Amino acid sequence: MRTTLSFTEPTTANGVCEQSFTLDGVPAVLWAPDADPTGRPVVLLAHGGGQHKRHPGVVARAHRFVTALGATAVALDAPGHGERPRTADDERAVAALRERMASGEPAGDVVAATNAGLAARAVPEWRALLDALAPTGPVGVWGASLGGAIGLSLAAADPRISAAVVGLIGGGPLGEVAARVTVPVELFLQWDDEFVPRADGLALFDALAAPEKTLHANPGGHGELPRFEVESARLFFARNLT
Amino acid sequence: MRTTLSFTEPTTANGVCEQSFTLDGVPAVLWAPDADPTGRPVVLLAHGGGQHKRHPGVVARAHRFVTALGATAVALDAPGHGERPRTADDERAVAALRERMASGEPAGDVVAATNAGLAARAVPEWRALLDALAPTGPVGVWGASLGGAIGLSLAAADPRISAAVVGLIGGGPLGEVAARVTVPVELFLQWDDEFVPRADGLALFDALAAPEKTLHANPGGHGELPRFEVESARLFFARNLT
Repeated sequence: MRTTLSFTEPTTANGVCEQSFTLDGVPAVLWAPDADPTGRPVVLLAHGGGQHKRHPGVVARAHRFVTALGATAVALDAPGHGERPRTADDERAVAALRERMASGEPAGDVVAATNAGLAARAVPEWRALLDALAPTGPVGVWGASLGGAIGLSLAAADPRISAAVVGLIGGGPLGEVAARVTVPVELFLQWDDEFVPRADGLALFDALAAPEKTLHANPGGHGELPRFEVESARLFFARNLT
Repeated sequence: MRTTLSFTEPTTANGVCEQSFTLDGVPAVLWAPDADPTGRPVVLLAHGGGQHKRHPGVVARAHRFVTALGATAVALDAPGHGERPRTADDERAVAALRERMASGEPAGDVVAATNAGLAARAVPEWRALLDALAPTGPVGVWGASLGGAIGLSLAAADPRISAAVVGLIGGGPLGEVAARVTVPVELFLQWDDEFVPRADGLALFDALAAPEKTLHANPGGHGELPRFEVESARLFFARNLT
C-alpha cells in the first residue's frame, strides 16, 4: 500500500515552523527549524495516554528540540486518541481503567496491558511515517507513559531509531521489549508512580540491553515528571543524535 | 582559633584563574573566572578516596563550572589524602580495605565506615573554608564516593549549602545524614557498583529529606561514572545556584 501524506499550510512562531498533516489518515504535526533540515536530527514525540499530538508537554518539547538541537520534531495522535475515533476495544479499555481506578485498587496492570496493545498498533504507523519522511539525519524518540511504551517498542523494532528517551513505564511485556533495545536509552521514572510500581520501573532499566542506558528518577506521582527533565532529554539527544 | 589562609601566585589558563592556598595547613586550590565573582555561585569539589584536590576529574569539573556557570570552584585535600600525612588510624583503614579487597569479599561496609570517619573530620575543614571565603553567592557541593559522603554530610550540617550533587555512596550512617538534607540533591549511582550495593544506593535516595531530589543511575562499576554526568551536574547547579 502506498503511503499518503496530506499537508496543510505551515505557520511559523518563535523560529519554529509548524505544519499539520495526515499519514494514511493518522493526524500528525511536524515542527521544523527555519534552517535546512538536511542531515539534522529528527525527534519523534509519542504522547501519553489520554493526551494527543498537541498536548502542551509535547509542544514544549518539540519547540525546545527544534530551537536547541536544530531538530525536526513529529507527533502523531496515538490510536484512539486526539482526533482519532475509539474502537470498541478502546472503549472497553477506557471503561476497565476507570472501573479499576474507581475501585481504589492499583491500576498498573490494566495500564500496562492497555498501553502494550496500543503500542502494538502505533509502531507500524510510526514506521510508515519514517518511510514517508525518509530522514537524512539520526532519529530519536521521546515518549512518556503510553508514549514510553510506544517509543521503547519502536526502538526495539526499527533500526532507524538511534536513541530513545522514554519513561513512566514498567511491567507487562516491556521487559522483553527492553531486552531487544541496544541503542542509548534515557529511562525516566517517578519514584511514587501510582501506575508503575517502583520495582517494575527498576527492573525495566535492568532489562534494557543498551550498553549506554541512564536512569533518571524523581519524587512524585505519574503526572509529576519535573519540567527540568526536558533539558535532560535535550542533553541526551545532543549527545546521541548530533 | 583564627583561620589562616595562605595564597600562592595565581596562574591563568583558558580563562580560568587557578590559585593554590592552605587553610590552617590544609592544602587547597581555587579556580575562578576572569569576571568579578561577587554574587556568583561557589562550587565545593570533594574528591574521592585515594584521589586528591587536583585529580583530573576534579579539575575537569572545576573548569566546566567556572567557564559554564561563572562559578568559583574550590577543592581541599581530604584528611590523609593528597599532600596531607596519614594518621595511624588512616594507615589502619587503608590496610583494612586492602586486606578485604585481597580476600575477594565485598568491601562496601569497610568503605562506608572509612568514608564516614573521614567525612566527620573533613566537614569542619570545609565549614572553616566557608567562614574564610565568606561567599556572596549561593554555594553548591559536588562529591563522589568519599567526596559524596563529605558533600552529603556538609549539606546536612551547614545551612550555607544550597544544592548538592553527590554519588557513589550508600550504606553505613548515610541514611541518617540524608534524612537531615533538605536542599536539592542530585544523587548519582553506578548500577553495578562493587562498593555500594544497589539496594543501599536506592535506600539512600529514598532517605533524602530533600523535596527536590533526582536520581541518576548508570551501568558499570564504582570507577565508571560516565563523563556526561559532568553536564548533568552543570544543569543541576545552573538550575539551583544561578
